Amino acid sequence: MNNLETYKKDFLNYLNSTILVKEPVGLYQPIKYILEIGGKRLRPILTLMICDLYGTNYNKAFDAALAIEVFHNFTLAHDDIMDNALIRRGKETVHEKWDVNTGILSGDAMLILAYQCFESFEPELYKELMLLFNRTAMEVCEGQQWDIEFENRNNVSISEYLKMITLKTSVLLASAMKMGAIIAKVNGNELEAIYNFGLNLGIAFQLQDDYLDTFGNSKDFGKQIGGDITENKKTFLFLKTLEVAGDDEKSRLLNLYSSKKKSAQKIEEVTNIFKNNNIEQYTLNKIKFFTEKAFEYVNDLNLPDEKKTTLKNFGISLMNRSV
Amino acid sequence: MNNLETYKKDFLNYLNSTILVKEPVGLYQPIKYILEIGGKRLRPILTLMICDLYGTNYNKAFDAALAIEVFHNFTLAHDDIMDNALIRRGKETVHEKWDVNTGILSGDAMLILAYQCFESFEPELYKELMLLFNRTAMEVCEGQQWDIEFENRNNVSISEYLKMITLKTSVLLASAMKMGAIIAKVNGNELEAIYNFGLNLGIAFQLQDDYLDTFGNSKDFGKQIGGDITENKKTFLFLKTLEVAGDDEKSRLLNLYSSKKKSAQKIEEVTNIFKNNNIEQYTLNKIKFFTEKAFEYVNDLNLPDEKKTTLKNFGISLMNRSV
Repeated sequence: MNNLETYKKDFLNYLNSTILVKEPVGLYQPIKYILEIGGKRLRPILTLMICDLYGTNYNKAFDAALAIEVFHNFTLAHDDIMDNALIRRGKETVHEKWDVNTGILSGDAMLILAYQCFESFEPELYKELMLLFNRTAMEVCEGQQWDIEFENRNNVSISEYLKMITLKTSVLLASAMKMGAIIAKVNGNELEAIYNFGLNLGIAFQLQDDYLDTFGNSKDFGKQIGGDITENKKTFLFLKTLEVAGDDEKSRLLNLYSSKKKSAQKIEEVTNIFKNNNIEQYTLNKIKFFTEKAFEYVNDLNLPDEKKTTLKNFGISLMNRSV
Repeated sequence: MNNLETYKKDFLNYLNSTILVKEPVGLYQPIKYILEIGGKRLRPILTLMICDLYGTNYNKAFDAALAIEVFHNFTLAHDDIMDNALIRRGKETVHEKWDVNTGILSGDAMLILAYQCFESFEPELYKELMLLFNRTAMEVCEGQQWDIEFENRNNVSISEYLKMITLKTSVLLASAMKMGAIIAKVNGNELEAIYNFGLNLGIAFQLQDDYLDTFGNSKDFGKQIGGDITENKKTFLFLKTLEVAGDDEKSRLLNLYSSKKKSAQKIEEVTNIFKNNNIEQYTLNKIKFFTEKAFEYVNDLNLPDEKKTTLKNFGISLMNRSV
């Protein structure tokens, strides 16, 4: 097992040598731009880590890792158009730096490029990876659709929210891991356990993101604190408050969420309502719940104890992140 | 060999029973909508026809035909956003009936759905079809990018234009045919000849489209005559005029093309400039050139003469279309 920084460095070398700008430059330049402006590279690291964990040379998983990362960035490019987002990772979004049409078309090309990344695998393995990738890609679209629909609904339940983040975020993390295992020729039951480990860890990861957006430290988190509140996002924090708060605070919260103006006072007031209702603790409990559920799947794996510990430590480090 | 109407009817039955609306309805309803509002279904018909021509049950090619048609409609949905088009096949475009975000996201889902259509093929065949599909899909994006870039360029050559329409239109027609042949287990040289037949016929088909948009009959063509002129499209007709007209007419044409206003007078004046410069004949000659080039590839095919004649007759009927 290598450390995560090694996977990241090797992956970035592979990405930089593989993703080239060719003609028409107007199509490929934005792809290289979004792929090079950074990000944690969590998904490709997961693919390489799992492949390595099962004793297979993780170079064999570079193309799958790259496909997952290219796909992830395709979703960011199109989501940023839909959300009217101007900044991503501290830089201009693609449609802001170029224009909306470029964002759409280069995004489309990125989705196709993700598919092309798999072409180096032999037919049986290729098809197995593609079936997983197809299903996952469609689920991510479904998750995005639910996310958009929830914006205009006032009766979103927590279970609906968890279903949405599972589709929009977790399935891709789960598939990233499962692909590493598929390439390492792991058997069927083990593959499902790895997938479910990733799925539950992914839910915990997204809840952590909700948590940090309000209760995190701006410097560490890398984003403005309170962004979700400013955008009236129906996060776990918001939905849980509607479930547990008294009528007065509920209507104050709904009232604050009816304005689209950016205001430090709004962020402070909403945060206080969350705090009054013990939402920090509720959220941390939920994160713990899904992390532990993820770890139960690790226990079932056919791996030596030290490797199980490695996987759990990875999960813990992900959950203790301040970024 | 069946007639084209039989392929179309069977394909539509297959499409209607395969493309279903599921949850989230907001994602899948627009997909079903655009796939059901009509169109010539030329591409899937080509796939089925070629498969049948080589003596293989064309039911085996339904999934590839569907993938091609779903992909084609994905490009229409996204192109309509980029072009701000309100009407397609006499009905509201997806982004007009719903909204731009729906057009983007349902389009993305359609591209993934196209990939899913191939899942029924066994691994070796699956991979062969996917390699072709990947390359073709990327080329179509490249063609769309060139098309967008040409809008803002005043020095587009006819050879650049032909390259653009080859990528944007012809490669998909060529691939539609080649997929039918791949499924019929035709050998490599034959596959290339089929592809090149489709490629050249596709170029002729697009030039025919340029021709009919100005010189066609509105009732038969199904679109408003002069649409390309209204939108200042740099078609073969326009580019050829710049090549052959005198300086006076060239500057009058460029001047007319500088306004974005819809005007019957502009259409008439531009059409007259085309006529004065014998552009009808130049265009018909070019269509003939590519049709004959396509037929040379048919001559090379390892098929009985009667089947070669069938293919050529199909090409001739396509070129004699008024729609």
